[in-house]
Amino acid sequence: MATAEFWYEFASTYSYPAAMRVADLAAPRGVELVWRPFLLGPIFAAQGWRDSPFNIYPFKGRYMWRDMERICAAQGLPLKRPDPFPQNSLLAARVALALDGEARANFSRRLYVAEFGEGLPIAERTTIAALLAALDLDPDTVLGLAESDANKASLKAQNARALELGLIGAPCLLTEDSEVFWGNDRVEQGLEWAIRA
Amino acid sequence: MATAEFWYEFASTYSYPAAMRVADLAAPRGVELVWRPFLLGPIFAAQGWRDSPFNIYPFKGRYMWRDMERICAAQGLPLKRPDPFPQNSLLAARVALALDGEARANFSRRLYVAEFGEGLPIAERTTIAALLAALDLDPDTVLGLAESDANKASLKAQNARALELGLIGAPCLLTEDSEVFWGNDRVEQGLEWAIRA
Repeated sequence: MATAEFWYEFASTYSYPAAMRVADLAAPRGVELVWRPFLLGPIFAAQGWRDSPFNIYPFKGRYMWRDMERICAAQGLPLKRPDPFPQNSLLAARVALALDGEARANFSRRLYVAEFGEGLPIAERTTIAALLAALDLDPDTVLGLAESDANKASLKAQNARALELGLIGAPCLLTEDSEVFWGNDRVEQGLEWAIRA
Repeated sequence: MATAEFWYEFASTYSYPAAMRVADLAAPRGVELVWRPFLLGPIFAAQGWRDSPFNIYPFKGRYMWRDMERICAAQGLPLKRPDPFPQNSLLAARVALALDGEARANFSRRLYVAEFGEGLPIAERTTIAALLAALDLDPDTVLGLAESDANKASLKAQNARALELGLIGAPCLLTEDSEVFWGNDRVEQGLEWAIRA
């Protein structure tokens, strides 16, 4: 079975519509997905950026938010801009990484809807605890795992790999032959490549 | 008949595959295209960039060139990296603007193939003169028009409009209701919007 890694960042706007559709696009093509949460902050810092490029360059930001409106409307997704943008996504990424398989995918989709569909503050433990409870997961147990030294180290290692792979934006699909497809608009192309690889 | 403006920059890599396919995508949809050459240099300068972002950020550049290889292979287009990159596109933009309708589109496609398919130096008058001659246009006449004060002013005005529209990359499709679709991968979406607008 072909596999592809779906690399995503919870603070990333375009990762939201991609996360909401990638599984539905992968399944009929027979592509197994590995969900890989990572952090763009350290990667942006390595490029000399101290904020989201969408904030540093207002034209880029204006375009992106209008583009998100169109994309979400076409996909039937709610859109509410979180304030501040970007949200601190460290805890969310740790929690996602502490979960396995379907639980990680389900939590990630729920988190994106909370953040970009409802504008909820995803940096806050209470927000994340409520999302975990809604998925019938015990918040204390999962948050404990998420903040364990082993899980923190695991996220750091995953991030080091993202930098090594040259991922400087999200979302990205990585195929088994190490091809990177960057962007919500490259999901289909990446999955097709994964089948041929 | 629906119309859409195709904004492109001769130094822009992704404008090449877009320019080579946009007319074939617009015709069956009944969308009339207006070809709008412009310059990203002054727009980048307004963002504080003194070079192509693909040179400033090596990860971005590495990704883009690999992406271009895949796109050109899929589209059956030759790809040869021009040196230096980006090429100075001022003369090419002036010449394109001095031509009308189909001549502008034909010249633009020829120029892109020369630049990114054959790696020719498009900043040089001899390169451009040869392309004009191959299109049965008189090089001296067209170059004279291109470098007239009126045409230079026209390009400046077009560029001022691009900045006002918030175009900070190329290619872009602009629809009659002022929606902007940025990127080679948004050509189809922009044309579909143009029909509904």
